[in-house]
Amino acid sequence: MSSSPLIDRRHLDFMLYELLRVDSLTGYARYAEHSRETFDAAIELAHQLAVSKFLPHNRKSDLHEPHMVDGKVELIPEIGEGLRAFNEAGFMAVLADYDDGGMQLPFVIGAVCDCMFSAANPSTVAYPALARGAANLLEAYGDEQQKRLYMKPIVDGRYYGTMCLSEPQAGSSLADIKTVAEPQADGSYRLSGAKMWISAGDHELGENIVHLVLAKIPGGPAGVRGISLFIVPRWRVDDDGVRTQRNDVRLAGLNHKMGQRGSVNTFLKFGEAGDCHGYLVGEPHQGLSYMFHMMNEERIGVGLGAVQQGSMAYLYSLQYARERHQGRHPDQKDPGSAPVALIEHADVRRMLLQQKCWVEGAQALGFYTALLVDQGRDPDETVRNESHLLLDLLTPIIKAWGSDYSLKANELAIQILGGYGYTREYPVEQCYRDNRINPIHEGTNGIQALDLLGRKAMMHNGAALKLLLREIGLTCADAGSLPELSALAAQLQAGAKLAGETTLAVGRRMAAGEVRLALANAGHYMTLLGHLTIAWLWLRQAAIAQRALAGANAADTAFYLGKLQACRFFFATELPQIELAARLVGEAEPSAYEMRAEWF
Amino acid sequence: MSSSPLIDRRHLDFMLYELLRVDSLTGYARYAEHSRETFDAAIELAHQLAVSKFLPHNRKSDLHEPHMVDGKVELIPEIGEGLRAFNEAGFMAVLADYDDGGMQLPFVIGAVCDCMFSAANPSTVAYPALARGAANLLEAYGDEQQKRLYMKPIVDGRYYGTMCLSEPQAGSSLADIKTVAEPQADGSYRLSGAKMWISAGDHELGENIVHLVLAKIPGGPAGVRGISLFIVPRWRVDDDGVRTQRNDVRLAGLNHKMGQRGSVNTFLKFGEAGDCHGYLVGEPHQGLSYMFHMMNEERIGVGLGAVQQGSMAYLYSLQYARERHQGRHPDQKDPGSAPVALIEHADVRRMLLQQKCWVEGAQALGFYTALLVDQGRDPDETVRNESHLLLDLLTPIIKAWGSDYSLKANELAIQILGGYGYTREYPVEQCYRDNRINPIHEGTNGIQALDLLGRKAMMHNGAALKLLLREIGLTCADAGSLPELSALAAQLQAGAKLAGETTLAVGRRMAAGEVRLALANAGHYMTLLGHLTIAWLWLRQAAIAQRALAGANAADTAFYLGKLQACRFFFATELPQIELAARLVGEAEPSAYEMRAEWF
Repeated sequence: MSSSPLIDRRHLDFMLYELLRVDSLTGYARYAEHSRETFDAAIELAHQLAVSKFLPHNRKSDLHEPHMVDGKVELIPEIGEGLRAFNEAGFMAVLADYDDGGMQLPFVIGAVCDCMFSAANPSTVAYPALARGAANLLEAYGDEQQKRLYMKPIVDGRYYGTMCLSEPQAGSSLADIKTVAEPQADGSYRLSGAKMWISAGDHELGENIVHLVLAKIPGGPAGVRGISLFIVPRWRVDDDGVRTQRNDVRLAGLNHKMGQRGSVNTFLKFGEAGDCHGYLVGEPHQGLSYMFHMMNEERIGVGLGAVQQGSMAYLYSLQYARERHQGRHPDQKDPGSAPVALIEHADVRRMLLQQKCWVEGAQALGFYTALLVDQGRDPDETVRNESHLLLDLLTPIIKAWGSDYSLKANELAIQILGGYGYTREYPVEQCYRDNRINPIHEGTNGIQALDLLGRKAMMHNGAALKLLLREIGLTCADAGSLPELSALAAQLQAGAKLAGETTLAVGRRMAAGEVRLALANAGHYMTLLGHLTIAWLWLRQAAIAQRALAGANAADTAFYLGKLQACRFFFATELPQIELAARLVGEAEPSAYEMRAEWF
Repeated sequence: MSSSPLIDRRHLDFMLYELLRVDSLTGYARYAEHSRETFDAAIELAHQLAVSKFLPHNRKSDLHEPHMVDGKVELIPEIGEGLRAFNEAGFMAVLADYDDGGMQLPFVIGAVCDCMFSAANPSTVAYPALARGAANLLEAYGDEQQKRLYMKPIVDGRYYGTMCLSEPQAGSSLADIKTVAEPQADGSYRLSGAKMWISAGDHELGENIVHLVLAKIPGGPAGVRGISLFIVPRWRVDDDGVRTQRNDVRLAGLNHKMGQRGSVNTFLKFGEAGDCHGYLVGEPHQGLSYMFHMMNEERIGVGLGAVQQGSMAYLYSLQYARERHQGRHPDQKDPGSAPVALIEHADVRRMLLQQKCWVEGAQALGFYTALLVDQGRDPDETVRNESHLLLDLLTPIIKAWGSDYSLKANELAIQILGGYGYTREYPVEQCYRDNRINPIHEGTNGIQALDLLGRKAMMHNGAALKLLLREIGLTCADAGSLPELSALAAQLQAGAKLAGETTLAVGRRMAAGEVRLALANAGHYMTLLGHLTIAWLWLRQAAIAQRALAGANAADTAFYLGKLQACRFFFATELPQIELAARLVGEAEPSAYEMRAEWF
């Protein structure tokens, strides 16, 4: 595999095999038949398909967004063609057992494959991603008939799927959903309600769409404890899976988005005619826990998808800055001298290095988090437990920090291209627009921050955070033994101490009953723990690079020196930002909290 | 005048009459016939026209961008209708003498009027803004015939104008432009070359378009010292101003932008047929100094225009956060309790307060800078000189800081609206897209930072910076006498000291010949001086608010408390960021500077 617009291959190899050593997963019985070669083959196949079948229509689907014709959604044909190739190559079943026709790959390798598609075309990949999410949920919680009728056709690429959570009046607040499911004598339910922001909610790509809908059974508990999960097929099917008639689900409208225009986003009405058939998944009132089981992996996907947009624009702006010659250095007064490449300008180089730090740092976190999913199935119980804890803690960080900073990276890519960057003739403004949804959906980043500080950092008496700080301490000890990195190791160790102390201060305030004030600066806590985690992963990368320098060839030497320089840049310009963040959180700085609505 | 989507009227009054006391300009002979009432009447007229004639087609012109039909540019008709109303109301001549049919208003009041239009519709306002810029330039440097033939029809609203600087190979680097002007026997010139990014470069809004074109006369000095300025009319005219024939200027293409889609952006070719007539303005080789004379005021306009997009989205998200009820506080477990307004959530309030700080802070700076233009014509020579110095120093800050932070504010407005903010059914994503050009055009913000650190802060042995620090010191002494603000005053004074020391450190490094390294962190210096300046203006606002609290009515009390709270928020969360910025600049942190192209 060579480098391409989608990927810096040397960097990916470094991530997977030097930093994360994902080939060690072949020691698990489930992956015993795999090897670095088979991992690479899957990634290469995804890469080729992404370049040939997803990338070419990325701009076209931005220009020609889905629209309704006679109540049906029309998409450009390239989306369906790309998805057929995706299905035929087996990417709907990348994680599935060999026996089920799957590739039986580790989660982390599946995530890398997904990255190829989401880099190439984040809109088109939304259709199979949602379908796969629905299939996974049914795999975990559906009964045998539900798996046969609704899961299997998704894995086979015949059906698609959705997740129907939000309602117009309750975007992030699932406690307030109003969709109702009335039990029927035959064990099925009749649903009525409206769902908003449903991606892939209606289209003609497959034979059917399996909506997974959150709704309330009358008489159940109030709030989130009374939410159940239902299968609501677009077409009802008989016991043999043959389509019988359209279910009472109506496409009530399309949302017109800033970006990701190729993925149709819908407003759906269920049961307007009183005949919307739904089928309970699992137990009543357990719907949210089922959904969150998937949501956590979705959040890793959102973070990694965001990072891919960051990476695409970074690589594009890097190439542009190498090729475009313009201007001179501030001390070059001779107008007869040749203009220098943009990359030679200090501020352009700063913008490139900043992108590299954010994007490669977040990518390391994303792949590491994905690896934790796999390590959560380790034969060793301690490894399993620790992986679960770390995964819980890091999931809101990859989702929120990954999407926030990859978006900031997109900003810089546009800036490097200047006026060209502002035009739709160049791809970077679309990267920004496509990426802008990621801090919003699957739980806004504000909600992620509350989850991180109020729940994940505190859970089990801070066990997950202690584990992270222990891992950071191990890296500091290791990197600290290298003279070139000892100062950075000391800086990181001090940051870890600060994070621990700050968390304790919040915990004390919460214990004293000042919950709202204690959590008011959760966003700054996300900066604190996010920057600390990314700095940790950069120091791990730097230690590997430092050791590999001796004996490296010229190309590898340049690559490793770049890693070391990016680490130094992050520690000099980014990591110090945690000091202010920690102070605001630790002291519960109250100015926003105490501001009153009427003072604005 | 009441509040509207365009403006918080109470805030504007505070800016103009409590903070800046612009009514004192009526003490100048030129404005003796004006009063607060006439200022307000002009602003109100602009406001009414902006709401009735500019705002209604802001979204339509985003959806229906200009396109070429048979070589002509087609715009939606509302643009022409809006501009007719603008011209008829006299806003092309808002600053002009009474004798010339103008309103003879101060620059700062003209800027406030412009803000109404640019808030309502930043694309449509581009046409008159560019035309007025061209007219002002001809007023200053054109000869009598040029004024009669090309300036007067612009002021009368019959002609439009452009500024043709950039070329495809030389966006920001004017030293490298290649357009050539060959002198002819009759004193005119024949131009040939290509100009890129020309806003309002072709359209049918008026009878003619006056292109002001930078070009090189063969045999002149190399680089920027060999640039001359030419009038190149789209239609040639005879001595009576009657159109004779089309000049050899061809619309070669349109750029399709991320935002500001209503203002046509063109690629123009001059002299393809060898018959492009141009007329020298002023002296040969002085073109860039003429253009920069206008450019400085344009940069204030860009900064203020950016701030208006920040303000529009802020006000919209504020209203949305007041009206939309969703979710509960983290310690509210009862799902039966009513959802709270978004504004009650700590993180939403933080995002609103952050927008308020950035937007109102930058607006204060923009209006203050505009006032300095007026004070540059003060009868007192010392006032004039000091105003010029401060204006020179603050212009890159309002341009760069204003556009950077108003764009960050737009980010937050989108986030507050959540999924709705991501759709084109709501206005905030367009604010972001329209605003995204402002850090790029009229000199990228990277160039502004180099201008600020390498030139403005250093000029006349640091005279301008000393003046700013003196003004900050006066405010600190004043606010420090108020017990409620003394800690903030001390914090600001320490920041001013830090800025002074940091600048000296850069000066020493430059004097030692390390110019490139010394300027490599210019972007961080922009943060340092920008945050310091905005903090200064916030402390001035806070001191006024603190004193006005006694005896204020309920509405004013809430308003002043909001100002005080915003000041505290800025000093707690934003101002401390200058410490890291100062360290990076002062120590010439080298990691980006030393990064090599081949290491990426």
